[in-house]
Amino acid sequence: MKLYDLELSGNCYKVRLFLSLLNIDYELVPVDFLGKEHKSPEFLQLNPLGQIPVLEDGDLVLRDSQAILVYLAKKYGGEAWFPSDAAEMGIVTQWLLTAANEIARGPADARVGTKFGFGIDVNAAQKKAKPILNLIEQHLSKSENQWLALNRPTIADISCFPYIALAPEGGVMLEPYPAIIQWCDRIKKLPNFIEMPGISK
Amino acid sequence: MKLYDLELSGNCYKVRLFLSLLNIDYELVPVDFLGKEHKSPEFLQLNPLGQIPVLEDGDLVLRDSQAILVYLAKKYGGEAWFPSDAAEMGIVTQWLLTAANEIARGPADARVGTKFGFGIDVNAAQKKAKPILNLIEQHLSKSENQWLALNRPTIADISCFPYIALAPEGGVMLEPYPAIIQWCDRIKKLPNFIEMPGISK
Repeated sequence: MKLYDLELSGNCYKVRLFLSLLNIDYELVPVDFLGKEHKSPEFLQLNPLGQIPVLEDGDLVLRDSQAILVYLAKKYGGEAWFPSDAAEMGIVTQWLLTAANEIARGPADARVGTKFGFGIDVNAAQKKAKPILNLIEQHLSKSENQWLALNRPTIADISCFPYIALAPEGGVMLEPYPAIIQWCDRIKKLPNFIEMPGISK
Repeated sequence: MKLYDLELSGNCYKVRLFLSLLNIDYELVPVDFLGKEHKSPEFLQLNPLGQIPVLEDGDLVLRDSQAILVYLAKKYGGEAWFPSDAAEMGIVTQWLLTAANEIARGPADARVGTKFGFGIDVNAAQKKAKPILNLIEQHLSKSENQWLALNRPTIADISCFPYIALAPEGGVMLEPYPAIIQWCDRIKKLPNFIEMPGISK
């Protein structure tokens, strides 16, 4: 298995983290992002969207970090991380979409704009970060919600965690969200948890 | 089963369409969007994000149109629309995320900005529409790709179809994309296909 990767990308990290939690061996293929390798003809053959991460597993080539989590969970994670019960699958999936929508447009964009520019309106992204962090804080403040879904670790947590934990790099501080900080700590205590620049144990 | 719905929303329509394709009876609950009912305390109990659609099925309350498609496919659609094979599930899921990312930020935003304003930069959204429509056109131009994934109708198609078919309402014409037009026609010929304002047979 090969992961086309950028170390500083939270989307790549969520795949690296999950591969580590599942204890899967794989080959890491760093993509020269600043050199625009992800827009090269060779890379566009792998992912015509020109985005990382991309996972190659035998004949399968998958784009999108959320879709890669679904694949890995289903293929290598048994029922634990992405169960096959319809209702449970729906509940986990809605958090994958929260990661792709509200978290991406809020804390993730604020960080990318702060660190790399890319013409992103950091102020607007910081404003968008607050309602979604408030909502997740309320959710996790309930004693039955130690995790985002099903009261156990699932790919819902892995999907949402990186750009929430990295929010301070985009000027979005986490101190107002104690339940979120505790949830981050729970994730950091999962067996085989790994760090990335900006996220340490 | 209850669907909290807005007739003009492509995200609500994709759920209505899929419920019809699956031949499922349900109660339609129109939400007074202009009256901001989706931001009322009662509605926020259903979906704290204040977004429609929301599906209620017994005790289950689900937000996000993509997650609702996953749930309905798994619960009522057998293996056809969202198969349980890991690779096939991953491939379908990557298109659900394309609907939530590139299609939402391109043709969907262009239409919402054109029709309703909401401070959306219509010009920027129209520009973003082109690369994703080009990519889907190339994908569907291959004879083996009559559908977005697995060469059969899946929730990948249902998820991406509405805001592509509605693109002209946002000033994004579909004439440059003949394979997309043919794909839309294939979807319109599915048994129990239903229309919405802006999408007719």
